[in-house]
Amino acid sequence: MKDKTFLMIPGPTPVPESVLLAMAKHPIGHRSSEFSCVLEETYENLKWAFQTKNDVFIYTSSGTGAMEAALSNLLNPGDKVLSLIIGNFGQRWAKIAASRGAVVDTIEVEPGCAINPDELEARLAADVNKEIKVVTLTHNETSTGVTNDVKTLVKLINKHGAVSVVDGVTSIGAMECKMDEWGIDVLISGSQKGFMIPPGLAFLAASEKAFKLHEKCENPSFYFNWSAYKKSVKDNSTPYTPAVNLIVALDEALKMMKKEGLEEIFARHKRHAKALRAAIRAMGLKLFVEDDSVASCAITAILPPEGISVPDIRKVLKKDYDIVVANGQNQLKDKIFRMGTLGYVCDRDLIAAVGSLEAALKKLGHKFRPGAGMAALIEELTA
Amino acid sequence: MKDKTFLMIPGPTPVPESVLLAMAKHPIGHRSSEFSCVLEETYENLKWAFQTKNDVFIYTSSGTGAMEAALSNLLNPGDKVLSLIIGNFGQRWAKIAASRGAVVDTIEVEPGCAINPDELEARLAADVNKEIKVVTLTHNETSTGVTNDVKTLVKLINKHGAVSVVDGVTSIGAMECKMDEWGIDVLISGSQKGFMIPPGLAFLAASEKAFKLHEKCENPSFYFNWSAYKKSVKDNSTPYTPAVNLIVALDEALKMMKKEGLEEIFARHKRHAKALRAAIRAMGLKLFVEDDSVASCAITAILPPEGISVPDIRKVLKKDYDIVVANGQNQLKDKIFRMGTLGYVCDRDLIAAVGSLEAALKKLGHKFRPGAGMAALIEELTA
Repeated sequence: MKDKTFLMIPGPTPVPESVLLAMAKHPIGHRSSEFSCVLEETYENLKWAFQTKNDVFIYTSSGTGAMEAALSNLLNPGDKVLSLIIGNFGQRWAKIAASRGAVVDTIEVEPGCAINPDELEARLAADVNKEIKVVTLTHNETSTGVTNDVKTLVKLINKHGAVSVVDGVTSIGAMECKMDEWGIDVLISGSQKGFMIPPGLAFLAASEKAFKLHEKCENPSFYFNWSAYKKSVKDNSTPYTPAVNLIVALDEALKMMKKEGLEEIFARHKRHAKALRAAIRAMGLKLFVEDDSVASCAITAILPPEGISVPDIRKVLKKDYDIVVANGQNQLKDKIFRMGTLGYVCDRDLIAAVGSLEAALKKLGHKFRPGAGMAALIEELTA
Repeated sequence: MKDKTFLMIPGPTPVPESVLLAMAKHPIGHRSSEFSCVLEETYENLKWAFQTKNDVFIYTSSGTGAMEAALSNLLNPGDKVLSLIIGNFGQRWAKIAASRGAVVDTIEVEPGCAINPDELEARLAADVNKEIKVVTLTHNETSTGVTNDVKTLVKLINKHGAVSVVDGVTSIGAMECKMDEWGIDVLISGSQKGFMIPPGLAFLAASEKAFKLHEKCENPSFYFNWSAYKKSVKDNSTPYTPAVNLIVALDEALKMMKKEGLEEIFARHKRHAKALRAAIRAMGLKLFVEDDSVASCAITAILPPEGISVPDIRKVLKKDYDIVVANGQNQLKDKIFRMGTLGYVCDRDLIAAVGSLEAALKKLGHKFRPGAGMAALIEELTA
């Protein structure tokens, strides 16, 4: 049905109507006092979402832009970087570091697993001359639906003395991520995820320690330059023309988030993912991440039942139920499908999604008792 | 009055209602077939606007992002760049080139003037060993309202053999800019100008000659990498999550532009700027760019009458008439104000703006005959 599409992908995520309408207003001048007021409030609320006293910069870019913004302000050619890789987005950190001429070492695990803190500890202990300047990691790996124990990993990185650079694209606004308390040096995120607005903005906060390394960076990016952004934040401004309408939308969305409360948002994501996982199991499907302790609250990756293909499941869900779920990426393409419970998602959305998945699986000939998934979902949602 | 603001700045420019409403729709998945169709049409229409057979890449960034996208795909440290500077945005090319480690030479003229082709010819002739790899220039300098003769300048650059990199941020969709016919190697633009959508997107097209230099670039930007974008254009996709809603808006705006026709759009901008200049002179004000032959069709810079300050003019226009005009930038701050006639501007808008400026000047004590500006404007508009 036209205009009925519901996105259950890991971004873009559903956008509240009030946010869409705020975005649809005529753009205002980006150097006007009205826009300064919007920025002042937005910068303040971003600090709240990042749980930090550091300034949070707003880049007009995708999340990948913010990843480049992180490393292009820290690295000189020849610098040693350790990249902790649990999926595509962890891999992307390594690629960007290499594109800056860094010497990149990695700890890489099988897709579906998280980084083992002991392995990181051993690797850092072996770096006796403290050559590793930067360690990159992913909080929530969107490609597999695995969440790293950032708190523990960052503690080890801080003990070593390296700068930690964390991808919080699909974690901030969805799961606990305490930048200051955990001692994260550089934290990035994106707009079309937990922040409930369309894609086009990315965010970055950097600690004092990170800024000290930045000072040694000889050719930082001009567009993403931290020093220019830091100066602009002080003036409630941006160095270059930002995506004004998206920032007006963000202002609205952040106010909604504050009204709900961070703890409540995290609890909702946790409850939804837990309920979805129970429903998936009850339908006789397998979860790609069996281990509940590392399973993401934002994205659940699911294996198709034998004899039924991922493209068929996606096609029926889209065509007959107007629900979009994501395929796997790269080597996981057609091996898994991914359902997002990220951002502006309510219980009813989840009920509709699980019911539709049951209907789709029945059509495709999966042998199970329709309603079993719904029963498990409702059990968890009403617990 | 609330929600009545009319932007006469050089961007963001006014956005058509149909474009705002297209933008306000729920985001669609950026890997969906629906979005591929939108991209296919948009890519095709961008080529039309750029008057080129080259692919036009869509970056989620400001125009400055596209400037970095241009040079970060061409330059290696130590490469020699010649920057033609007629204002702030020409200066920005030089800064970005320097941030990539290039050795930057400049031709710089007084604000309000254009580059003299003879001076460029002499400078290029002196480069007997063809050390200059890239020449950067600005088509329409937004900070002063001066338009360079890009056709002639690029001809000289091509004769020398260097790669020409042209800022078309406020020229494309406002004035003649024939990428292929003029032999421009790299051409960039931004969304919130002639393209009539809010800020957040930037565009870049590169010639085969530019791509050959790109192949020699050792550490191109990851986020802005041309090769990645070129591959994506072929698949009607983008390498990273783009600003989906802005692209849907762009699709709508480009269709409106095609309906009007490029020649008609250029004629409208020319007619509006000419009429505004006549009106300004008739009010007894001075134009910052006296020479009609280099005056911009998109932005008109105006000196305040003696004894009346730029901030006062801007304040009255904003407060009493809901019109926003721009101040000068940097050393021109409070020395000039700038009125944009760029993008989605009709005759009535111009009539309202000139009438309001007359009213504001009368309030501020300027000695002139109110109605004189309007008479000159109407004379030109109805000629």
